[in-house]
Amino acid sequence: MSVPEIGEFDISDLLIPAQRSLKLVGRPARPQGTVLDISGVRIGGTEVVVIAGPCAVEGEKQLMATAKAVRAAGARMLRGGAFKPRSSPYSFQGLKHEGLKLLARAREETGLPLVTEVLDSRQIDLICQYADVLQIGSRSMQNFPMLEELGKVGKPVLLKRGMSSTIEEFLLAAEYVMKGGNERIILCERGIRTFETSTRNTLDLNAIPMLKRLTHLPVIVDPSHGTGHWWMVPQLAKAAIAVGADGLLVEVHCNPEDALSDGPQSLRPDRFRKMMLDLKAVAAAVGMEMADPCTVHA
Amino acid sequence: MSVPEIGEFDISDLLIPAQRSLKLVGRPARPQGTVLDISGVRIGGTEVVVIAGPCAVEGEKQLMATAKAVRAAGARMLRGGAFKPRSSPYSFQGLKHEGLKLLARAREETGLPLVTEVLDSRQIDLICQYADVLQIGSRSMQNFPMLEELGKVGKPVLLKRGMSSTIEEFLLAAEYVMKGGNERIILCERGIRTFETSTRNTLDLNAIPMLKRLTHLPVIVDPSHGTGHWWMVPQLAKAAIAVGADGLLVEVHCNPEDALSDGPQSLRPDRFRKMMLDLKAVAAAVGMEMADPCTVHA
Amino acid sequence: MSVPEIGEFDISDLLIPAQRSLKLVGRPARPQGTVLDISGVRIGGTEVVVIAGPCAVEGEKQLMATAKAVRAAGARMLRGGAFKPRSSPYSFQGLKHEGLKLLARAREETGLPLVTEVLDSRQIDLICQYADVLQIGSRSMQNFPMLEELGKVGKPVLLKRGMSSTIEEFLLAAEYVMKGGNERIILCERGIRTFETSTRNTLDLNAIPMLKRLTHLPVIVDPSHGTGHWWMVPQLAKAAIAVGADGLLVEVHCNPEDALSDGPQSLRPDRFRKMMLDLKAVAAAVGMEMADPCTVHA
Amino acid sequence: MSVPEIGEFDISDLLIPAQRSLKLVGRPARPQGTVLDISGVRIGGTEVVVIAGPCAVEGEKQLMATAKAVRAAGARMLRGGAFKPRSSPYSFQGLKHEGLKLLARAREETGLPLVTEVLDSRQIDLICQYADVLQIGSRSMQNFPMLEELGKVGKPVLLKRGMSSTIEEFLLAAEYVMKGGNERIILCERGIRTFETSTRNTLDLNAIPMLKRLTHLPVIVDPSHGTGHWWMVPQLAKAAIAVGADGLLVEVHCNPEDALSDGPQSLRPDRFRKMMLDLKAVAAAVGMEMADPCTVHA
Repeated sequence: MSVPEIGEFDISDLLIPAQRSLKLVGRPARPQGTVLDISGVRIGGTEVVVIAGPCAVEGEKQLMATAKAVRAAGARMLRGGAFKPRSSPYSFQGLKHEGLKLLARAREETGLPLVTEVLDSRQIDLICQYADVLQIGSRSMQNFPMLEELGKVGKPVLLKRGMSSTIEEFLLAAEYVMKGGNERIILCERGIRTFETSTRNTLDLNAIPMLKRLTHLPVIVDPSHGTGHWWMVPQLAKAAIAVGADGLLVEVHCNPEDALSDGPQSLRPDRFRKMMLDLKAVAAAVGMEMADPCTVHA
Repeated sequence: MSVPEIGEFDISDLLIPAQRSLKLVGRPARPQGTVLDISGVRIGGTEVVVIAGPCAVEGEKQLMATAKAVRAAGARMLRGGAFKPRSSPYSFQGLKHEGLKLLARAREETGLPLVTEVLDSRQIDLICQYADVLQIGSRSMQNFPMLEELGKVGKPVLLKRGMSSTIEEFLLAAEYVMKGGNERIILCERGIRTFETSTRNTLDLNAIPMLKRLTHLPVIVDPSHGTGHWWMVPQLAKAAIAVGADGLLVEVHCNPEDALSDGPQSLRPDRFRKMMLDLKAVAAAVGMEMADPCTVHA
Repeated sequence: MSVPEIGEFDISDLLIPAQRSLKLVGRPARPQGTVLDISGVRIGGTEVVVIAGPCAVEGEKQLMATAKAVRAAGARMLRGGAFKPRSSPYSFQGLKHEGLKLLARAREETGLPLVTEVLDSRQIDLICQYADVLQIGSRSMQNFPMLEELGKVGKPVLLKRGMSSTIEEFLLAAEYVMKGGNERIILCERGIRTFETSTRNTLDLNAIPMLKRLTHLPVIVDPSHGTGHWWMVPQLAKAAIAVGADGLLVEVHCNPEDALSDGPQSLRPDRFRKMMLDLKAVAAAVGMEMADPCTVHA
Repeated sequence: MSVPEIGEFDISDLLIPAQRSLKLVGRPARPQGTVLDISGVRIGGTEVVVIAGPCAVEGEKQLMATAKAVRAAGARMLRGGAFKPRSSPYSFQGLKHEGLKLLARAREETGLPLVTEVLDSRQIDLICQYADVLQIGSRSMQNFPMLEELGKVGKPVLLKRGMSSTIEEFLLAAEYVMKGGNERIILCERGIRTFETSTRNTLDLNAIPMLKRLTHLPVIVDPSHGTGHWWMVPQLAKAAIAVGADGLLVEVHCNPEDALSDGPQSLRPDRFRKMMLDLKAVAAAVGMEMADPCTVHA
């Protein structure tokens, strides 16, 4: 996304008193914005980067099929959870270490950098051996000791907004990581909790221009969690690009009906491919690029 | 927006139990969607219709200058409040009847159909003498006796979502109007009330695909109230078009600093014009048209 | 409730910028608090006043039985809706004028002053012929033209908080009425809309001390709408008294299973009577009085 | 609190589908309710147990003075944070290990069992050496790996509700701990995040009867965080007891003006003492006991 015209802002327009606490992540610290290079994929620049894959790694076949499909459709990174945060202790909790090994195999196969979630400080070392990007989920956004640990790590962090976190709290969480020494942070809007019940969350696209103004960090959008309905994902993905997001995080599953988690919000590969084609046109309309399915596929 | 592929929906996917109460506004009542013709402006079809103008009519000079500017930039209807709902009884309450007369003069001058707000059942007759579209504001969405009166009126109704109304309640409010016999209703998402304080409201763009699926009525978006910040309006306007809205409702003011209401969220005419040009590209990317500033201006 | 020690407050502690707009309803306008006399029932003083009755008037038998039962249990006023605001146009909308006549008959029978809801400015004259107190429901809290009309009326107004209205907006709505010349206003907290779904609303008891501090008007609590579950009503009623409310608004129905509206949150008369006995002890613990069932009954 | 009359509940009244997942914490698993004995203090029975102390341990003098004062006023346990979760990395983060040592000294001095917060799985061993009860804060309620670790620990857990967690999610978090083998859990309502800004949070007292119905575990209330204003704490504390809470968690500080965190919501010792005397009357009114300041002091 292009840099906002900061000179134009009034002082009276500065919305967030905590801005003086945003010493490192605040836009003034790097007015031109941050572009991260993740194993050759550049995020925060002129390309809309799509990260896609299953909610959870469920097995080799499921993962490989999905990974190849999202790569063929133009995804630039692979997402997949090995450690899953589930509201109920009786739900599927992920394949854990085994899941990480499968993810590594999928990376070998596809060349896509891996994004996977960390739930606890003690998992960081292990996950760093496999992942290219450490995802911090909504429920962990204010796990401050873990944020401090992530500050010491040599891997980029994908930080998701807490489901009831303000923009200010979101940026302060990123400040924790950067204060520790890790400058490679991607912010992710994933929907907030409101009174509306027809969607799983309320995707807050207002947050994108607000974040882009207040921070220099790349900002992406997760329309899968943001809506909870697969059939809404393509339209909200278009909106996310139109509003200025630097990328998307999208759940794709070969057989959503059989998914062990988040089936209702996962796209089938064919629908994902169709969406990717449609997104290119929207990206172009706002002056952004997107990887061409064919080129990537070759 | 194109008709959603209804045949594909599962029964299990029907989200809102009240759907059986949506006898008239429900999508099944008119699967192909509704296109309204308002003094020659068609909304709900292949054109993104932009309705623009000041929050409140403040005087002849302010209104005329703004009306001409928005018309020149491609707006298809003129908005402006004569009766203003204000939280405090000590705030400017609108020019009332005088404001309506000024609006009528602005229509003569520009040819733009008028949209203006009704606050009370007793105002309906008077406002019908001037307005082309009766706007029902967020605070009146569940003013049921007024909704019943609007059902008997020969003018289209622009119904804004209540600031804490669910999608279901929103559609049931429209059902009140249609049950009374008035089939010409435009729905407007204008932001909901959440915990986030950096924006005035949280624009709920999830609502657009959900509404387009559940009802056949046209759906537009108000990014001015939805964000509360003029500098966010162009980006959210793009997102609204990308997500499938049939139109926009935008506040424009010649001198936002001097506005008697909603200055911080009103665009200056030059910024509005710039936005309109940018929107055309996004509309094209999702298969929609927009009026060309030049043509309209001629 | 006793007067808060205002002298003790810091200026820095004044929470609501709009307080300067609360010229008439603000506590400083009448530091000692307001006690209203409604046909002999004093509210805002040393007695906890319970207003009870059915959600809607459904017929003579239902109303009379309920009215006598609540009077026998110690209720000091009778509530009952003749005009009902319903989300769906296909739901029971109340007996309207017929309902008002039945309410008047119930007053004759029991001696209890009547509280009933007004939905529209045009109903005010009619309802004033029957009611002792005009109730303004949650959905109408910001119906400003109606608030202005209520300012000219010679009857007290019971103003319910909007379901997503801030304390500030609530007080400004009361300011509208008082600015019109009607000083007899009772405020009613009835639950706000939040993300929680196990209860119909979230009863905001924080609002009671906040309101008592900011305004001199009496403040009551509606635990029926505030919870949506009859079995929770007695406990929240106790809490409301403990937190400093001047009274309660409670739904009671002879046959909740057959109620045309709000059955799940209506108490049966025997449970209501039991609750009233329990409330006396809590009232005494916070230095308040309550009518004795026996005395009243005699 | 007395056991709810479970036999009376309708099947149709069972609100939460997840109840079948509440195998261990669900009320049916122990219909008579759970009474925990914590170093001689019994919680969940006939006594309202007040836990009080400073938000954060700031130094020996501050802690000892506060600890003695709360004990003299009738508090049964001492709270105090050594590891503090702060939104900004530049805010005071607690005295950490040093703070734990000071807490242990305060216990020696006063005999009060200690409640202190755990932020990270890696801190559990250390904190278990000092604390009598491990507090899990709002931001950690869904730190599932930590909940699993707490299941293996021989100390009771005080689990605070997440600021945007539903009752269902709250109970499922407790289920995680109990599934691990730790049956000693106290639930704490501490206010939820809503649109209202005049209070820090919205204390959800509806949650108390709902939780007491759905689970057999003791439930307490934190009116300090629940309101954010010291002057509201006594009234909400009364309401909490009236609604059926088994205890309270209250912040007290000798010099709230100088507190390093949460000063505005901390009571001075004299006000705390006054509150405790007032609470006894409310407790008695709902059939509960409270420690007598004098007796405890002796």
